[in-house]
Amino acid sequence: MKIYTDEIKFSTKGFDDIIDITKAVVEILRESSIKNGIVTLFIPGSTGGITTIEYEPGLKKDFPEMMEKIAPQNKNYHHNETWHDGNGFSHLRASLIGPSLTVPIANGELTLGTWQQIVFIDFDNRSRKRSVIAHIIGD
Amino acid sequence: MKIYTDEIKFSTKGFDDIIDITKAVVEILRESSIKNGIVTLFIPGSTGGITTIEYEPGLKKDFPEMMEKIAPQNKNYHHNETWHDGNGFSHLRASLIGPSLTVPIANGELTLGTWQQIVFIDFDNRSRKRSVIAHIIGD
Amino acid sequence: MKIYTDEIKFSTKGFDDIIDITKAVVEILRESSIKNGIVTLFIPGSTGGITTIEYEPGLKKDFPEMMEKIAPQNKNYHHNETWHDGNGFSHLRASLIGPSLTVPIANGELTLGTWQQIVFIDFDNRSRKRSVIAHIIGD
Repeated sequence: MKIYTDEIKFSTKGFDDIIDITKAVVEILRESSIKNGIVTLFIPGSTGGITTIEYEPGLKKDFPEMMEKIAPQNKNYHHNETWHDGNGFSHLRASLIGPSLTVPIANGELTLGTWQQIVFIDFDNRSRKRSVIAHIIGD
Repeated sequence: MKIYTDEIKFSTKGFDDIIDITKAVVEILRESSIKNGIVTLFIPGSTGGITTIEYEPGLKKDFPEMMEKIAPQNKNYHHNETWHDGNGFSHLRASLIGPSLTVPIANGELTLGTWQQIVFIDFDNRSRKRSVIAHIIGD
Repeated sequence: MKIYTDEIKFSTKGFDDIIDITKAVVEILRESSIKNGIVTLFIPGSTGGITTIEYEPGLKKDFPEMMEKIAPQNKNYHHNETWHDGNGFSHLRASLIGPSLTVPIANGELTLGTWQQIVFIDFDNRSRKRSVIAHIIGD
């Protein structure tokens, strides 16, 4: 049993920018040479979320529309009274989606479905440099 | 430390069909003979979600009603312009609930609460054959 | 590779009481002497959730307001017909947020962001004694 970790780094535009990180995770898995185990993906930050989605243009519009209904951008959040940075909605959306995802590895492959991609969603209200931690345990 | 994996297979009716997979997970844990560790449950697909709930008839109605409010079935989703399969709401609900769940194992038992069951929720708009991957690491 | 587990115990007030458990997780990590691996946090119960948030007074008000919109306290839930305990909203909120979170460990530290805390949220409608299971695998 061994551990292999790496970071995926990229730039985002904020405002529910959805980034497909599947290929980057697969590359790290290749480098690890681990064939069976789990990969934990984790976002070190409080305005990004991680989940899976069918990464196609329609859902890239639908998902932000759903989040806008759940936690609207222009509501007068208490968070903004604390920090005046106007991103209360970003924090709420991030806490709802969550910062961690764990995917099993079988025979050196992620066990994703055919139409299922791993995505980072940047809920912040500005462009950011982001990193996602990929942590693999296995044989 | 060892790894044991299996798949749980079942049929679903779609439309927020909630399936209690707790017993199936316990059976796999028994077969694994692992006494301490973690079990990762993962859905290979983009229209199903996994979480825990008190599996009783009332919540089996309440949960779909909440999801209908969050991502209504009859909204005109951009996803449907791409694929014309009418299940944009299914994808959104699945991404919100998420495809992975990790449960610790102690003394050969899942560390669930008394009224807490592990459930797969099929958000698709048709019946499906489904599988959930159960991946155990431990001693 | 070794396994170390412990429980974090505390009292809550219910009604979306948000408890910062980051320091308690760090203490368990110290006791474990594990430097690289993952910690899985799990809630044994169906009316609590776990996620991360920037733990500041504004978001401690904003988060419950979002949850009240998603699953209002005073709706007439089917769950209440089963149990008459009036906490249907608690169960729905808990299933939505989810009971598990996995955080990588690097060089003996949790890989959290600077403004990111691990929180337990008690969605129940009464004060409770709670526990969160912390399960660490690593070297």
